[in-house]
Amino acid sequence: MKLKSAALRQQILTAATDIIVTNGLTEISTVKVAKAVNTPQSNIYSYYKNKEALLLAVFEYHQHKLIEALSGSLSDSLSPKEALHHLVTAVLKLGLANPATIRIILLFRQQPEWRSRLPRITDSVFFTKLFAQFDQLQAQQIVKPYDASFLSEGVFSIITNYLTAIDAGELTTESLSQADLMALVDDFMLMPDYR
Amino acid sequence: MKLKSAALRQQILTAATDIIVTNGLTEISTVKVAKAVNTPQSNIYSYYKNKEALLLAVFEYHQHKLIEALSGSLSDSLSPKEALHHLVTAVLKLGLANPATIRIILLFRQQPEWRSRLPRITDSVFFTKLFAQFDQLQAQQIVKPYDASFLSEGVFSIITNYLTAIDAGELTTESLSQADLMALVDDFMLMPDYR
Repeated sequence: MKLKSAALRQQILTAATDIIVTNGLTEISTVKVAKAVNTPQSNIYSYYKNKEALLLAVFEYHQHKLIEALSGSLSDSLSPKEALHHLVTAVLKLGLANPATIRIILLFRQQPEWRSRLPRITDSVFFTKLFAQFDQLQAQQIVKPYDASFLSEGVFSIITNYLTAIDAGELTTESLSQADLMALVDDFMLMPDYR
Repeated sequence: MKLKSAALRQQILTAATDIIVTNGLTEISTVKVAKAVNTPQSNIYSYYKNKEALLLAVFEYHQHKLIEALSGSLSDSLSPKEALHHLVTAVLKLGLANPATIRIILLFRQQPEWRSRLPRITDSVFFTKLFAQFDQLQAQQIVKPYDASFLSEGVFSIITNYLTAIDAGELTTESLSQADLMALVDDFMLMPDYR
């Protein structure tokens, strides 16, 4: 087996990301990725055993970026509402700085056939902890008593709709401010007394 | 110019829909559509002058289905909250019966480069009327005073997240009922006194 290079692995993930963002999830191939990074196709397989493994690695790479952004935004001294706003701000900042990451996560999550193959909450220390806090906030009647993943996904959609509308020139941060967005997220997720 | 057939036009739209739902927006071609409906590629061009015109026709076909579903659900005797619930129920029913229609609308709307080329609210009699009512409800402080398109898109996302989660087996209509969904939509869109 060849010695693997972290730099080439990163190039493969970056090239695969570009192809997926431009052409969608279904039209990516190891041939195209190999061409983009100028390496033989067989070499891709020494990093990822097949296309599925490569695609999953792309998702995990971006999910890791999301987790980094989210975990960096939290501290123990925040109220539930402040914590929610810090999380929303972190996703917004990530989406503005790195739209591909949000796009990739959305693309995978929106395909029912992919969703079941993606890492579960319990596969991630960060998400396990976050959803445990979520459970507590639901028990304390601070967060609404609905399916936690569905509520989180809703907040993620509200944020990504905002990013897409700004990107398309339909909204500006003046016509819908970040504070407006927070108010919408609060109403969606939190019980009335905690908004 | 050849005599055109409404049946073949419908076959073209159906084939293009299938290709987009399976492979995404970027990998569709008039060659693939021609092959799927077993007609020469040149014949596609007698219906649609280019790929963009075909894609736009696919969007309009499904938007028309959405408008049919929505307009059939409204009557003059409904309260704002009832009207909102009728609209949500109509999108849910359409999504359960015809997932491709919702998927196509989502795919186009999520591409900033496509959004600007899609029909505008003012291009549709139905949407013009709906958004005029929306304006009134905002003036009456029944609907929240934020960008109406953004609020509508948010409701659409909440519904499509629900459909995707059900499709993926993550939710059932027992674990998150239609009434729960309505409550979430109300909180997102309506002012507190009208929820």
